[in-house]
Amino acid sequence: MSAAVSEHAAAAPIPARAWRTPVKIRFSHCDPAGIVYFPRYFDIFNGVVEDWFPGALGLEYRAFIRDRRIGLGPAHAEADFFKPGLQGDELVFAVLVDRIGNASVTLRLPAMRREELILTARLVIVTTDLHEARAIPLPNDLRAALECYQERCR
Amino acid sequence: MSAAVSEHAAAAPIPARAWRTPVKIRFSHCDPAGIVYFPRYFDIFNGVVEDWFPGALGLEYRAFIRDRRIGLGPAHAEADFFKPGLQGDELVFAVLVDRIGNASVTLRLPAMRREELILTARLVIVTTDLHEARAIPLPNDLRAALECYQERCR
Amino acid sequence: MSAAVSEHAAAAPIPARAWRTPVKIRFSHCDPAGIVYFPRYFDIFNGVVEDWFPGALGLEYRAFIRDRRIGLGPAHAEADFFKPGLQGDELVFAVLVDRIGNASVTLRLPAMRREELILTARLVIVTTDLHEARAIPLPNDLRAALECYQERCR
Amino acid sequence: MSAAVSEHAAAAPIPARAWRTPVKIRFSHCDPAGIVYFPRYFDIFNGVVEDWFPGALGLEYRAFIRDRRIGLGPAHAEADFFKPGLQGDELVFAVLVDRIGNASVTLRLPAMRREELILTARLVIVTTDLHEARAIPLPNDLRAALECYQERCR
Repeated sequence: MSAAVSEHAAAAPIPARAWRTPVKIRFSHCDPAGIVYFPRYFDIFNGVVEDWFPGALGLEYRAFIRDRRIGLGPAHAEADFFKPGLQGDELVFAVLVDRIGNASVTLRLPAMRREELILTARLVIVTTDLHEARAIPLPNDLRAALECYQERCR
Repeated sequence: MSAAVSEHAAAAPIPARAWRTPVKIRFSHCDPAGIVYFPRYFDIFNGVVEDWFPGALGLEYRAFIRDRRIGLGPAHAEADFFKPGLQGDELVFAVLVDRIGNASVTLRLPAMRREELILTARLVIVTTDLHEARAIPLPNDLRAALECYQERCR
Repeated sequence: MSAAVSEHAAAAPIPARAWRTPVKIRFSHCDPAGIVYFPRYFDIFNGVVEDWFPGALGLEYRAFIRDRRIGLGPAHAEADFFKPGLQGDELVFAVLVDRIGNASVTLRLPAMRREELILTARLVIVTTDLHEARAIPLPNDLRAALECYQERCR
Repeated sequence: MSAAVSEHAAAAPIPARAWRTPVKIRFSHCDPAGIVYFPRYFDIFNGVVEDWFPGALGLEYRAFIRDRRIGLGPAHAEADFFKPGLQGDELVFAVLVDRIGNASVTLRLPAMRREELILTARLVIVTTDLHEARAIPLPNDLRAALECYQERCR
C-alpha cells in the first residue's frame, strides 16, 4: 500500500502555481551514514508548513497555537523517501492540499532536488482545542484560505 | 486509507512475547502547545529500533552503519497519533515485524500509556550499501534474527 | 579563561555521594564526522537536570513550568569537551551544585566514560516568573532541596 | 566570571563590516514555556557558522568534514542568554573572530532582535584530524581566510 502511494505521489506533477520553498540540508541534519537522519525531515516538514501559512494562506501560524489556542498537530504523518538527502543539497518543497475535511486537512509535500523527486510527505493536520484537547471544526478563516489555495493549484 | 490502517493497528493486540521498552516523555520533547512535537517521536522510534537490535535480535545496531557500512534507513516512515503525549508520560513501545522482504523489513511500533494506545508507527527499513547508495538484500544474520523474532511473537 | 575553568573542572574530583545517571550515546546524537554533534549534548544536559530534580532533590521538574509557571531556563550555559563522544558510549553524568544565588543556581555536570572525563558542563539556571518574564527568587522548596543536596555532596 | 564576560560581550559593539545572517525562531525551537529551548540555540549557532564559511570566508564548510576529513567541532561552547527568544522572532546573528590560535579559532556570535542584544555565544573551534582524532594546526586556507575576515571587521 505504501508503495502504491509512493508511485502515485511520484507520478503526480506539482502544479505550477503551488507554493514552494527552498530548504538547505545542513550538517546538523545528517547522521553518521552521511545522509539526512529521517526524523529531521519531519521537523523540516513542520517548518515548511509553518512558512506556508503566511506565505500562501495569508495566516499567521503561531497565532493559532499561542493566541487562539488551536492546535495544528498531525493525526497522521508519513513520508516516502526515494533518494537520500545529502549535506549541501538544496531541496525545493511544495505544499499541496489533498483533502479538506471537517476537522482536518491533508497536505502533501513533495521535495525536489532539481528535477528529481527526493521524497513525498503526507500530513493529516487536525485542528484541536488546546484547552479541552479535542478536535474542533476547521476555523472559517483557515477553511476559506485552504479552499482558495486548493483552487489556485488546480 | 490512513484511517483504515489506524483502526487495524489499534485493533491488533500486541503479542505477549514482543520486546518492549519504556520511553519517558521529556520537557525537550514538548512544544509550546505542551504536547510532544511530532517530529521528536520519529527520533524516539529510531532510538527504540536501535535498542531493539541488541535487546531482541542480538545484533549490534551501530556495527551495521559504522563497521559493515550497511545503512538501515527507512524508505517509508509513518505514524498515527491517537492521543497527545504529555511531559512526564511513560510510554511503553513494542516492536513487531510485519513483513520481511528481500531488501527491507517492515516494523510496527505501537506505544501504550498503561492500557491506552497512544500511537502506532510503521517503518519500512531498507538495507543499503553505504558506499554505493543502493539497496542490498538483507544480510543473513539480520534475516535470521528477524525470522526468529517474528516466530517468537506469533 | 575557559581553559582555566576546564583544568579546574577536570581536576575537581566528583564527590562520592553526588547523584549520577548513565546516558547512552545514540546514532541520533552523532553527526557525519561520527561523533556527538555538540548541540545534542546541551539537550542531554537538560535531560540530566530534569531527572536530577526528582532523583536527588525530590522535586518534580515539570510541575515548575506547567503548574507553578516558574521557568528554569539558563542565563548561561557552557561546556568543555575533552574527548569526543562516540555512538554506543555510555557516559555517566553527575550533577553538582556550585553556587546557590538569590534567583539562580549554578550547576556543574561532569560526564565520565569509565575513568575518563569526557566533558564538563556548567549551567546557571535562573528561576523566572513565566507570566511576567522576569527573574524571581528561588522558591523555598527548591532552595532548601539545593542546600540539602549541596551538603550531602560535601 | 560569566557575568563579567556577559557584560563585556554586551558592551562590545558589532563592527559594521561583520557578516550577519537572519534566523527565524520557529515553533520547533520553542518549549512548553513558550520560549526557545536553549539547546536548539546551539544548533542554530552551528548553522550560522556553517553559513558563515561560504558567506564570509569563501570556504565550503562541508568539504572540511566530508572531503578533507578535518573536524570543526568545538572544544568549548558557551552562551549568555539576556532575553528569551520567542516564536516568530527574527534574530540577526553576527560572527566575530576573537582569537586565532595554532589549532583553534575562537568565534563570538552576538544575536540581536532589532536594537536589543538577545544572546552572545562563544565557540572555540578546534581543527582535528578525523582519522586520528587529534588536533591539527589550522589549515592554511582557513587561517588566511580567518585573518582576512578579522582584518575586515576591525
